[in-house]
Amino acid sequence: MTSYNAPLRDMQFILKEMLEIQTYQDLPGFEEVTEDLIDAILEEGGKYARDVLHPLNKVGDAHGCVRNDDGSVTTPPGFKDAYDAMVESGFTAMAAKTEYGGQGLPHVLNVAYSEMSSAANMAFSMYPGLTHGAYSAIEAGGSDAQKNTYLPNLATGKWGGTMNLTEPQCGTDLGLIRTKAVPQADGTYKITGQKIWISAGEHDMADNIIHLVLARIEGAPEGIKGISLFIVPKYILDENGEPGARNSLECGGLEEKMGIHGNATCVMNYEDATGWLIGDENKGMRVMFVMMNAARLAVGVQGLAQAELAYQNAAEFARERLQSRSLTGPKAPDKPADPIIVHPDVRRMLMDSKAFIEGGRAFAYWTMLFNDLEHLSPDEKVREKASDYMGLMTPVVKSFLTDKGFKACSDCLQVHGGTGFTKDQGVEQFLRDAKIAMIYEGTNGIQALDLVGRKLSANAGRSIFGFFKEIDEWCEANSGDEELKPFVDALGGSKAKLQEGTTWLMQNGMSDFNNAGAASHDYLNVFGYTALTYMWAKMAKIALAKKGSDPFYDQKLVTGRYFIERLLPEAGSHLEKLKTGAKTMMSLDAEMF
Amino acid sequence: MTSYNAPLRDMQFILKEMLEIQTYQDLPGFEEVTEDLIDAILEEGGKYARDVLHPLNKVGDAHGCVRNDDGSVTTPPGFKDAYDAMVESGFTAMAAKTEYGGQGLPHVLNVAYSEMSSAANMAFSMYPGLTHGAYSAIEAGGSDAQKNTYLPNLATGKWGGTMNLTEPQCGTDLGLIRTKAVPQADGTYKITGQKIWISAGEHDMADNIIHLVLARIEGAPEGIKGISLFIVPKYILDENGEPGARNSLECGGLEEKMGIHGNATCVMNYEDATGWLIGDENKGMRVMFVMMNAARLAVGVQGLAQAELAYQNAAEFARERLQSRSLTGPKAPDKPADPIIVHPDVRRMLMDSKAFIEGGRAFAYWTMLFNDLEHLSPDEKVREKASDYMGLMTPVVKSFLTDKGFKACSDCLQVHGGTGFTKDQGVEQFLRDAKIAMIYEGTNGIQALDLVGRKLSANAGRSIFGFFKEIDEWCEANSGDEELKPFVDALGGSKAKLQEGTTWLMQNGMSDFNNAGAASHDYLNVFGYTALTYMWAKMAKIALAKKGSDPFYDQKLVTGRYFIERLLPEAGSHLEKLKTGAKTMMSLDAEMF
Repeated sequence: MTSYNAPLRDMQFILKEMLEIQTYQDLPGFEEVTEDLIDAILEEGGKYARDVLHPLNKVGDAHGCVRNDDGSVTTPPGFKDAYDAMVESGFTAMAAKTEYGGQGLPHVLNVAYSEMSSAANMAFSMYPGLTHGAYSAIEAGGSDAQKNTYLPNLATGKWGGTMNLTEPQCGTDLGLIRTKAVPQADGTYKITGQKIWISAGEHDMADNIIHLVLARIEGAPEGIKGISLFIVPKYILDENGEPGARNSLECGGLEEKMGIHGNATCVMNYEDATGWLIGDENKGMRVMFVMMNAARLAVGVQGLAQAELAYQNAAEFARERLQSRSLTGPKAPDKPADPIIVHPDVRRMLMDSKAFIEGGRAFAYWTMLFNDLEHLSPDEKVREKASDYMGLMTPVVKSFLTDKGFKACSDCLQVHGGTGFTKDQGVEQFLRDAKIAMIYEGTNGIQALDLVGRKLSANAGRSIFGFFKEIDEWCEANSGDEELKPFVDALGGSKAKLQEGTTWLMQNGMSDFNNAGAASHDYLNVFGYTALTYMWAKMAKIALAKKGSDPFYDQKLVTGRYFIERLLPEAGSHLEKLKTGAKTMMSLDAEMF
Repeated sequence: MTSYNAPLRDMQFILKEMLEIQTYQDLPGFEEVTEDLIDAILEEGGKYARDVLHPLNKVGDAHGCVRNDDGSVTTPPGFKDAYDAMVESGFTAMAAKTEYGGQGLPHVLNVAYSEMSSAANMAFSMYPGLTHGAYSAIEAGGSDAQKNTYLPNLATGKWGGTMNLTEPQCGTDLGLIRTKAVPQADGTYKITGQKIWISAGEHDMADNIIHLVLARIEGAPEGIKGISLFIVPKYILDENGEPGARNSLECGGLEEKMGIHGNATCVMNYEDATGWLIGDENKGMRVMFVMMNAARLAVGVQGLAQAELAYQNAAEFARERLQSRSLTGPKAPDKPADPIIVHPDVRRMLMDSKAFIEGGRAFAYWTMLFNDLEHLSPDEKVREKASDYMGLMTPVVKSFLTDKGFKACSDCLQVHGGTGFTKDQGVEQFLRDAKIAMIYEGTNGIQALDLVGRKLSANAGRSIFGFFKEIDEWCEANSGDEELKPFVDALGGSKAKLQEGTTWLMQNGMSDFNNAGAASHDYLNVFGYTALTYMWAKMAKIALAKKGSDPFYDQKLVTGRYFIERLLPEAGSHLEKLKTGAKTMMSLDAEMF
């Protein structure tokens, strides 16, 4: 049996002590964000995650979803009740705008709830997650009428939403999309085609499902410039805005997968289904990109969340399982053996996970605050920086947190020994669930290419140079602090590596684009380690000022030091690798593999 | 649909060109080992693996094993026929002694077959694998009568064998074993207790199953010094040596697991079952240790084998899947997109896997040759070195190859994008199967502790210093070769790191054993990278001499260079980590996790 308890203290530390989000009350949406409100939301969300969602995690894995003969899909036992409770609670509407029935609270607060929900039950949390994606797309690109029609019920979760991108012949390369849209006299379009891997594509928990579908209008230009985005509801709305006639679409099958069994991954067949264009013809990708940053951050948080879940269960197991004596003599002489947490190599796996998780959480929340500032700040400079950082950090949060989150799940399974491999124990599910986060919403390889190919060079490198400047200033401002010195030095060293990698890319990536591609994964990793070092340096500064007052701060400092000693060294090997370029990597003919 | 084709050319290269096993014909068992015999065995084994075993891999995963109400276990459809074909072929008897009906061929030849079999169907190959373990234990510790009674049918696979170590309260710490053995007047023992996670514990493919059971004779000393080993057959042999009366033991249940579903992982209940002592009372662990090196090497090969299987399927997918254009312009302009193998980050994952697999294969086979030399060489010095190396290399082969093998499976799944996550495609099974190899036969953490705590210090460090000397001599002998220089330099550099790590351990591990424990994982990794660099240097030397004659040698050189550029840098970060010691790692109280 596994369990999940939201790491409230750590979330509070990041939100209240590090980001100090309660100090932004002059911004719209932040007015109500007091320390008490933060605590209340975290506590309530934590209870729901622990008591309602997590007990259904294994149920969802064991039962999966079932497609019935009529094309309907039955979710695992208990999912519908948990969904109703979620709609009732208002959690999903937390960050939605007040004019559409949401609570208008900041994204940075919502991300903490999102982490809990993903950790407790990743497959379940994807239903509201996709709905949020559909909400964001319509909010970003829809007409006022479309917004008023669809957003209120998407905000609450009364209706579900989906994103229909992938087709059998295209995932990453959406220019190959074949689904076609034929304009009708009444201004609607008839949509025909097959979409695959549509998460939450069909289920029994919402009154309607609003599909957002990428398709090509007849006669549109080839490739990515001919793609439009459509709203295609499962039930077409009647004159009262209520679900009416059934649209001509159905779930043609469910995908059997390695994990996230509780989520319905659907083949969706559209056959002259009625759709409404969002925004302009052939400009569908523009709308998709607007919402993509937020969706990618959310997937990064999934990686982190599964790591937290795996870590909690591994720590509990390591405290309880008795096996062998400590290398330095018995620690529990009254018992037949010592708890395995006394063994250094078990600690290594736990500390690796803990140092990654806490640094990764700070990084994800810190980035998410820019998502709020980008839209809400009255200061144009702040908005510009926030927008720059959202662009720059998003592929790193997505890729680094899911790669390392998967590794943490593997390490935490390993802590359990043979027990971890059994279904009965349950921790193996976390590893299976976590794997998909490295793939969907743009594979981690695509994220790395986005970072080096697009984000670095945007606005002549303004984002990355701004980040370097911020780190330099932080190091300079804290250079006199003896206690903080290990963190300042580590940050300076890591930033120098990132700068060296950036320079290498600028010198070698333009002359041969394959050099940029070959370096992308390692560059993203150097970036990730540097970003987490920056977070640890910030956290250490706070903890140093408060240490002794609460053991929490002392353990924070130990964990931060561990990060520098035991995780950060990898930045060096990644830098070494990236500088070797593409030549050897690309030398073999395809048939030599 | 997945496929498997044994990498015959690479196996031939290692066996014939690098290890030159056909040159040992003056040793017993090697007399018949000509180049033709090597080819014949590889080809026949490869066909069986490709045509018989691999098609059952997914079947085994989907069906699993079923325990019937009477305690019998039904294996997946097709397994019994494949098993019969295997017994018929004589493959399992390849390395068994001729006096027991085996072919008496060297282990180094058998390991190639073992790799194929594991790659094609890991769950299936565990049945003969465990039988081989039981064979080895009886051969190592049994009386002549026991050998004559049991070995011939174990050699052929007509009977199966198992190893019964784990109990609910103990896996690693076998001193906690509770299963008891009560001496009987007739010299037998009554065995009572519960064993868990017994691979191949009960099934329908063999005429009898010979369980080897660790138990404590009444009144034996506590802990590991009171453990004895027993032969407990499922069917007690009659006066003709044929399976007779049913023994008092049964499979109480099957474990539901993350992977290797085709293998029956049993709870075994012994209730006054009749057993025969192997060797002396309370000396059971000694027999276990004799066979453990070989078993651990075999598990290392499983990690390698799953990586090879995953790699082959990923390479095939990458050649066929069309998605996006090359960064340097279209490579297949007549097609809607380029095959993804043109993308550097896809290549990175394939080349990472390939460079690991080929280096790891050389390392495993090279080590396995010492398993033969240890027993067969007439030269005492050679036997001593072989025994030293078997001890020293075994934990590295087991741990490094399964850790990196798992990573390769994850990378190769990743090459497939979303397709890789589907059951339909099938590559996700390889990742699930591969995970157990990091755990069983001593977790990888235990291997690392064995390396730093036992193997390094044995005979005052004779093994490791011998290894250093061998590398130094090799570098010295090849220092004049300009073309080989990158390999010689890389090997020298890596060996220096390993030496630095060794010195650090000697200076810090004795004063605080936790330092040794804390360093063990990273030390083992520095060792692994150094060993693979040595293998690559040896292979590069051969390939340089033959390049141009066959593209095989040119690709070998490219892959070797890739290893040095892109994999070896990790040795540096592992060294950096290990030198930080145990202090920070061990500082937190257990409840702070």
